[in-house]
Parts: sequence; structure tokens; C-alpha cells
Amino acid sequence: MADLMDNKVLMAFASYATIVLSKMMLMSTATAFFRVKKKAFANPEDCASFGKGENAKKYLRTDESVERLRRVHLNDLENIVPFLGIGLLYSLSGPDLSTALLHFRIFVGARIYHTMAYLLPLPQPNRGLAFFVGFGVTFSMAYSLLRNKLYL
Amino acid sequence: MADLMDNKVLMAFASYATIVLSKMMLMSTATAFFRVKKKAFANPEDCASFGKGENAKKYLRTDESVERLRRVHLNDLENIVPFLGIGLLYSLSGPDLSTALLHFRIFVGARIYHTMAYLLPLPQPNRGLAFFVGFGVTFSMAYSLLRNKLYL
Amino acid sequence: MADLMDNKVLMAFASYATIVLSKMMLMSTATAFFRVKKKAFANPEDCASFGKGENAKKYLRTDESVERLRRVHLNDLENIVPFLGIGLLYSLSGPDLSTALLHFRIFVGARIYHTMAYLLPLPQPNRGLAFFVGFGVTFSMAYSLLRNKLYL
Repeated sequence: MADLMDNKVLMAFASYATIVLSKMMLMSTATAFFRVKKKAFANPEDCASFGKGENAKKYLRTDESVERLRRVHLNDLENIVPFLGIGLLYSLSGPDLSTALLHFRIFVGARIYHTMAYLLPLPQPNRGLAFFVGFGVTFSMAYSLLRNKLYL
Repeated sequence: MADLMDNKVLMAFASYATIVLSKMMLMSTATAFFRVKKKAFANPEDCASFGKGENAKKYLRTDESVERLRRVHLNDLENIVPFLGIGLLYSLSGPDLSTALLHFRIFVGARIYHTMAYLLPLPQPNRGLAFFVGFGVTFSMAYSLLRNKLYL
Repeated sequence: MADLMDNKVLMAFASYATIVLSKMMLMSTATAFFRVKKKAFANPEDCASFGKGENAKKYLRTDESVERLRRVHLNDLENIVPFLGIGLLYSLSGPDLSTALLHFRIFVGARIYHTMAYLLPLPQPNRGLAFFVGFGVTFSMAYSLLRNKLYL
């Protein structure tokens, strides 16, 4: 056990994975905050404190800034899940430390830039490039893993 | 290998993670069941057995109980993914068994309560509190992990 | 460390998990490709190169083939996340190699068939059966894990 976390690649993966997951979790709180601020809710019970009956129903609506946050969040989920799965298995496959660090750093940087590009928003292709950089890093780890450890 | 699963923290994490993932998987079957019961489908091929041509198209619709189940499911996904990633790495970082058990138990309890609060539904802030308790547990594990094992 | 990836079950899990995650990642690129092909975007900044002002706004729309790809992607996410979490912990619990391989192979086959059935589309119950086969494999691993290693 101690051995596992004495491994520097796994420690580095743990650090970067935790940072990028924490960033993703902030999307939940941002969505909740903007739902209250914009009074745009998905459930009747959520607007109960803003009015009674018909008066509350008008808050059951979508708001563009809330929808944008939800798209960022879903895009994070779609990209961080493969990074977590492939990254963990890649970390266990004994890669070179500096190569592994390069993968983790670029991925986390690309995802943070992607979120900024989505929320400001920056003109395309900023967000598109950030997406493809993160995507490429994950595929590079997948390729390295399958080349070294394929067992079907 | 045997060593890894002899580790009580990892065994406990495996048990609680499996329980909370199984709960999440039930959302899929519940959604499928309600789609058939309410005749509210997302794909033309899904309504083919309920009618031909124009007659089938009326079942391509959204239903509030199906949409509610889908929101529960997505909320689970958004919260259980960070718990899985951070929780696994936290379990490997050698935490105290009783502290780890406390984290896992509160998280799983909070997510089950969250689902009940969403589906009944209970008035707010029941669901909101359940969400923030689970969220806090995950952040607490992330903090513990980064404090002890940060390697960037 | 070396020990971990010398373990054949974990190597097999790493291979199948990487394959099914790579398949899921292709959904992102397919969605991006069809958004451009069908000119159906979710964000104003994405249509900026197709027209100015009011002229660009008409591309802020949903397109059925894009929505179908997004449903495939979300369904993948909902099913592959439990497979990753439960499958990894199951692999660490020391299962018989041939039993484990059977689980991994059926799951990956079922998810690839599910995607084909969703995209062609094949008439139901093709997609429904593919979903339930993958679902059953994951529950079978969850059951095996909880029976052998339950620690609450």
C-alpha cells in the first residue's frame, strides 16, 4: 500500500486528478448560484420560496447563463471521465515520470483554459483547441497503455 | 495484489463505491420503465411498437416524471464521478480507517437521501442540503489528499 | 507497482477499459463534426464564422442527428462510469482470469453493439438488449465484489 503512493507517477496523477475534479465540482455550485440569481429553476419545489402557486411557475424556466454552465459541466464530465480511467491505468503501467507529468500538466491546463474560454466566452477556435489538446493527451496515454500492456 | 484488497480502507471504499454506483444504475432502469409507462420516448424507433407512422410520432415527447428521473441521474453522475476518482486516490493515500469510513458512510447516506428528496419530492432545502453534504465529503477527501500527497 | 500491472486481470481490465473509453471519446468528435456539417450549434460564438449578427443566430438550433449523438454519448457515460468504478475494484479483488475476461469482453461488445444500434438505427429491441447485457455484466461484477469483499 505504502509502496503504491510512494510511486511518484501515481502521486502526481492523484494531485492533478484531484485538482481537475475539484474544478469540475465548482461547476455544480456555480450552476446552483446562477439558478438562484437568475431565478431559473428546473423543479417546482425549488421556486417555492419565491412565490406561491401560479406565481412560482414563472421561475420554471431556462436561462442562457445557467444553460452555458450546464454545458461546461457536461463537457467536463465527458472529458474528465476518460482522463480518470485511462490516466489511472496509464499511471500504473510504469511510464517515465517526466513524460507522465507532461501529460497530466497539459491536460489540466487545457481543461482550465477550456472552462475560461467557454465562460468568458472567448471567440472560437479557443475553446475548440483547448478541447482537442485535452483530447489528444488522453488518446496519447491510451495509445501508450495499449502498446505496452495490451491483453485481450 | 492480495495486499491491496487486504487493506481495509480499500475494501470499504470498494463496498461503498459499488453500493452508490448500483443505486445510480437503478436510475437507468427507472427511466426506461417510466418511458414505457408514460409513453414518452426520445427516439422514433422506440415508439414503433405503439403505433405506425404519424400515430407513433405523438409518443416522441417529454414527460415531467421522466425528465425528473433524468435530472436525478445526471446529478448522480456529476457527484459520484468526483467521489470515485478522489475517493480511490484518497483510499490509496493511507488514511485512518475510522476517518475514511466516516467519509464513505456520510457520502453514500447523503446521495441516497438526495435521490429520495428529489423523487418524492421533499420541500427544499432537503435536496440542497443532501447535495452539499456529499459535496463537502468529497472536498474533505480532496483536501486531505492534496495536503498529504501533493506532487505537481 | 510492477506487481500490479503484472497481474493479468488488471492488464485485461486496462485494455478493455481503454478501448471502451476511446469509443466513447469518438462520440465527442462525431458530435463536433455533425454540428459543423448540419450547422446546428449551442453557442453564439460557435456560429460566428458562418455569418454576422442576426444571420448567425439561425444556426443556434438543435438538429436531430446531433441530438441522437448526444444521447448515445450520455448513455455511454451513464453506463461506462459504473463499469470503470466497479470493474477496477472487481479486478483488484482477485477474480478468476477467465471469468473476468468474459465480463470485460461481453461488456465492451455490448456497448459497441449499443452504439451501432443507436446510430443506424436498428429497430428495437436491439438497442434495449445491448443496454441490458452491459448493465447485467456490471451488476454481476458488483455482486461478486460485495459477496467476497463487503466491508461496511
